[in-house]
Amino acid sequence: MSGVKKLRTDLSRSTNVVFQAHHVSRTKRGQVVGTRGGFRGCTIWLTGLSGAGKTTISFALEEYLVSHAIPCYSLDGDNIRHGLNKNLGFSAEDREENIRRVAEVAKLFADAGLVCSFKYRDVKGLYKKARAGEIKGFTGIDSDYERPEAPELVLKTGELTVNECLHQVLDLLKEQNIVPSEIMEEVNELFVPENKLNLAMADAKTLPTISITKLDLQWVQVLAEGWASPLTGFMREREFLQVMHFGNLLDGGAINMSVPIVLPVSTEAKQELDGCAAIALEYQGSRVAILRNPEFYAHRKEERCARQWGTTCPQHPYIKMVMEGGDWLVGGDLEVLEEIKWNDGLDHYRLTPRQLKQKFKDMKADAIFAFQLRNPVHNGHALLMQDTKRRLLERGYKKPVLLLHPLGGWTKDDDVPLDWRMKQHAAVLEEGVLDPDSTIVAIFPSPMMYAGPTEVQWHCRARMIAGANFYIVGRDPAGMPHPETKQDLYEPTHGGKVLTMAPGLTSVEIIPFRVAAYNKAKKAMDFYSPERQADFEFISGTKMRNMARSGENPPDGFMAPKAWKVLVEYYTSLQKSV
Amino acid sequence: MSGVKKLRTDLSRSTNVVFQAHHVSRTKRGQVVGTRGGFRGCTIWLTGLSGAGKTTISFALEEYLVSHAIPCYSLDGDNIRHGLNKNLGFSAEDREENIRRVAEVAKLFADAGLVCSFKYRDVKGLYKKARAGEIKGFTGIDSDYERPEAPELVLKTGELTVNECLHQVLDLLKEQNIVPSEIMEEVNELFVPENKLNLAMADAKTLPTISITKLDLQWVQVLAEGWASPLTGFMREREFLQVMHFGNLLDGGAINMSVPIVLPVSTEAKQELDGCAAIALEYQGSRVAILRNPEFYAHRKEERCARQWGTTCPQHPYIKMVMEGGDWLVGGDLEVLEEIKWNDGLDHYRLTPRQLKQKFKDMKADAIFAFQLRNPVHNGHALLMQDTKRRLLERGYKKPVLLLHPLGGWTKDDDVPLDWRMKQHAAVLEEGVLDPDSTIVAIFPSPMMYAGPTEVQWHCRARMIAGANFYIVGRDPAGMPHPETKQDLYEPTHGGKVLTMAPGLTSVEIIPFRVAAYNKAKKAMDFYSPERQADFEFISGTKMRNMARSGENPPDGFMAPKAWKVLVEYYTSLQKSV
Repeated sequence: MSGVKKLRTDLSRSTNVVFQAHHVSRTKRGQVVGTRGGFRGCTIWLTGLSGAGKTTISFALEEYLVSHAIPCYSLDGDNIRHGLNKNLGFSAEDREENIRRVAEVAKLFADAGLVCSFKYRDVKGLYKKARAGEIKGFTGIDSDYERPEAPELVLKTGELTVNECLHQVLDLLKEQNIVPSEIMEEVNELFVPENKLNLAMADAKTLPTISITKLDLQWVQVLAEGWASPLTGFMREREFLQVMHFGNLLDGGAINMSVPIVLPVSTEAKQELDGCAAIALEYQGSRVAILRNPEFYAHRKEERCARQWGTTCPQHPYIKMVMEGGDWLVGGDLEVLEEIKWNDGLDHYRLTPRQLKQKFKDMKADAIFAFQLRNPVHNGHALLMQDTKRRLLERGYKKPVLLLHPLGGWTKDDDVPLDWRMKQHAAVLEEGVLDPDSTIVAIFPSPMMYAGPTEVQWHCRARMIAGANFYIVGRDPAGMPHPETKQDLYEPTHGGKVLTMAPGLTSVEIIPFRVAAYNKAKKAMDFYSPERQADFEFISGTKMRNMARSGENPPDGFMAPKAWKVLVEYYTSLQKSV
Repeated sequence: MSGVKKLRTDLSRSTNVVFQAHHVSRTKRGQVVGTRGGFRGCTIWLTGLSGAGKTTISFALEEYLVSHAIPCYSLDGDNIRHGLNKNLGFSAEDREENIRRVAEVAKLFADAGLVCSFKYRDVKGLYKKARAGEIKGFTGIDSDYERPEAPELVLKTGELTVNECLHQVLDLLKEQNIVPSEIMEEVNELFVPENKLNLAMADAKTLPTISITKLDLQWVQVLAEGWASPLTGFMREREFLQVMHFGNLLDGGAINMSVPIVLPVSTEAKQELDGCAAIALEYQGSRVAILRNPEFYAHRKEERCARQWGTTCPQHPYIKMVMEGGDWLVGGDLEVLEEIKWNDGLDHYRLTPRQLKQKFKDMKADAIFAFQLRNPVHNGHALLMQDTKRRLLERGYKKPVLLLHPLGGWTKDDDVPLDWRMKQHAAVLEEGVLDPDSTIVAIFPSPMMYAGPTEVQWHCRARMIAGANFYIVGRDPAGMPHPETKQDLYEPTHGGKVLTMAPGLTSVEIIPFRVAAYNKAKKAMDFYSPERQADFEFISGTKMRNMARSGENPPDGFMAPKAWKVLVEYYTSLQKSV
């Protein structure tokens, strides 16, 4: 049986055994090992008696980290006994040697930039050796690191679930900056915690204020609820430039972020507030949030609009608002003092990402497919959603759930207002076109930007944060007619193409669709087929509106009748008010 | 002394030693280990006598792979004797155990998805054990892999350089698909090989033609010489969209590509040629290239300009050309029939990326810092270059080489023409402001686009392809005044900021600089310091031009006198011709 031998004297007899320094710095290794950047080599020792759950937690950790793009390897004591340590037995000496060798291997892994976990039943021998200085630089990170006398973390595996234990380990790793404090896709809410609210409100009262618009408040809601995680507030210049030029936030690992979320302020406000440590955001007389460590930078409107929309046409309804708004942008860390309520009878639909994720869990959904919309649902939309469900069932999912997710923030004047749309959607579900038992209808609080292929990525990544793992994209998403040329502002296929290629959407699968149109022969909406071109009739939004206004019925099968009735009511009400 | 023991009987006595399967598949690991995607865990054994160069090659391989975003770790026999194997001596048994343990560790690394290399003086014990079946699944990839009786590769380290040996290893790894067959950053030329030229030229004569402009030909040269590697021709729609939206080519691993390289054609040409398998590109009556499998897509000019330039101002000189050009774009695979020569007495400066890399090699450069310019060199520029060299020497580089790389493609009317600039640069070197022995002056064949932060990435990545590992960026790179507002079209700090954050520039380090200006007290160009503001004088391009025209001398130290003389000559010649 082999045991531990002290052989330093033997080594010194060899003249050729010299320590070789790697040419690759840890910084460089950090850039390439894993896709998040940053050197995070370390070792995690899991100890405990047999059956305590070491293997379970070690492998759960490995799975979690790898799925979050942090390379990790689990050295399992039992696995290693089949390989490296197969020439060791179970004597006291051999146990010590067992541990010693694994510890040295873990050190090599850490040096290579991986998070390495390993587990042993007992580590008495290990601690003893570590304390005796026989394993130097053991953590693999910093040889100055003090070896712990007591464990950093005790996992009560008897009382907690695996997931709870896993998250305790992750919290520890976050404290150590091994794992970024916001794993990119986790929901990062910006509300002030209950127990700190009074303090924050008192603080806010002392601060200078910026008066914000309704549109701004909608963005505050978006940020507060975590839809734009890991953003911690309105974008600073650095984030803004990353978005403009790369469509991704890059610090700490790439996550898709294709639209700027910014707070425009006037030159007067900038001059007054530049240099303040914190500013209160005020809406209709109420202080709703604090913006800390604010950073002002020029709102280069022409460039921003050109890059975001691919046009600077001043008649574009959002571009118009940009041009009329502040000449400066202010970014910073947001602390939101209260939930944003609109008191329009629809707040109960405004589920946050966390609430949505909880609902999906409660429903035991194993696949969540999201559908973004800003229009009434016709049977072409429904076809996309029904077909997606069918495909997911075919793939083996047992409980696919649809997130029907109409956008509820600002929309342009001639879009159907939110309240009417919600009525219309309710009618569609009532008519059974979509299945209420496997559908969640909720409101997405974001403003609409009409920015086509740029915006569709935002629509997708926000639903990814909320737990969707499938995202349906159709023709010309987030598009509109060019205000001057009247042609489509965006090429209708570009949204689907760009979304499918977009980086930073790691945990969601894009479901692109072909055009759906009314099939006269089938008297139903159908996927368009050029071979049977004559069977199809395209009913545009305009045509639909005109029919609704004039009381003309659309062809059978175009839209659920009750849902059509809602539209007719809406357009009739418009004409009355004109 | 420990030795090898067969202890399988002992293991069987333990009821708890069971092999545990990782929950992380190799596919998943492949996605997150390294930034290239694809599982490439493997082990490379380097064997040979002392002094054969195993350590050198192992570490060179590690450095190369890591700098190409392939995680790799080198297990050095000597290093391991200080850690894992420190309890082993040099008896025959212990040597065998030494090797065995390292082999097992290498297997673990390979399983974790890394390329792992290790080296031993002799591996007789290892081969013997491997042959005896005592180390199963040793390669770490596929346990069906037949253990080689003979080495896959014999490196003649006595005859070849380290780099040559390294590339033989890389070739082997490419064959095995461990390393992608085109490492993204390798030069991919598009010239027809000599032995196929006659065939290609004959083919070209049979093809329908598109007549291309001088500007188009400059882009053909850029593509042919490999500056835009791994592009295989003018961009297809897919690549175009990736560039427009993400500033990177994404297929096969991300590499920075921030500007579209496209061929505009008229609607008539599109109608005539859509559906052809190949088209010949004709310039001034000569067929210069073949475009195979052409793909036509709409040239959405407003959107393209907005996204590329952040403006659609029709007076912008390149935007003007876009607006006047074809309404369609054609992408495809380019086969270029002959080197592009301009016969202007400057072709010898037009070194291709391969030629530049060879020059750097011949000079034994260990650091190459590139400087892009489109203007005459004044001492502020020179200061940036001199300071970079100083810093590189401080960092331990022995032979830093400057690539002074004026842009030689299309420029706007009021920029100093290439031939005058080359004269001016020659004078700068003659005056010793820059050191001719460690400077290569070459011409970068790309057209100028005046697209600021978008374009500076192109400027950088092209020099990265050509072998530069450091890139200097100053204030307002690739900028110009907004034709309407006369203000800077781009914020002067954005170029440096965006470039420093840009993904896909893995093997080049950005050297950003502060503003340099004329220091009146020192009578020299100096880095601007706000504390000594009064000492500085900013001499703009306009001011410089006016001085040159009027015969007024700039302050001493602003520019090398002979170089100034060239400028005066140029501006004088302009006035004469007006």
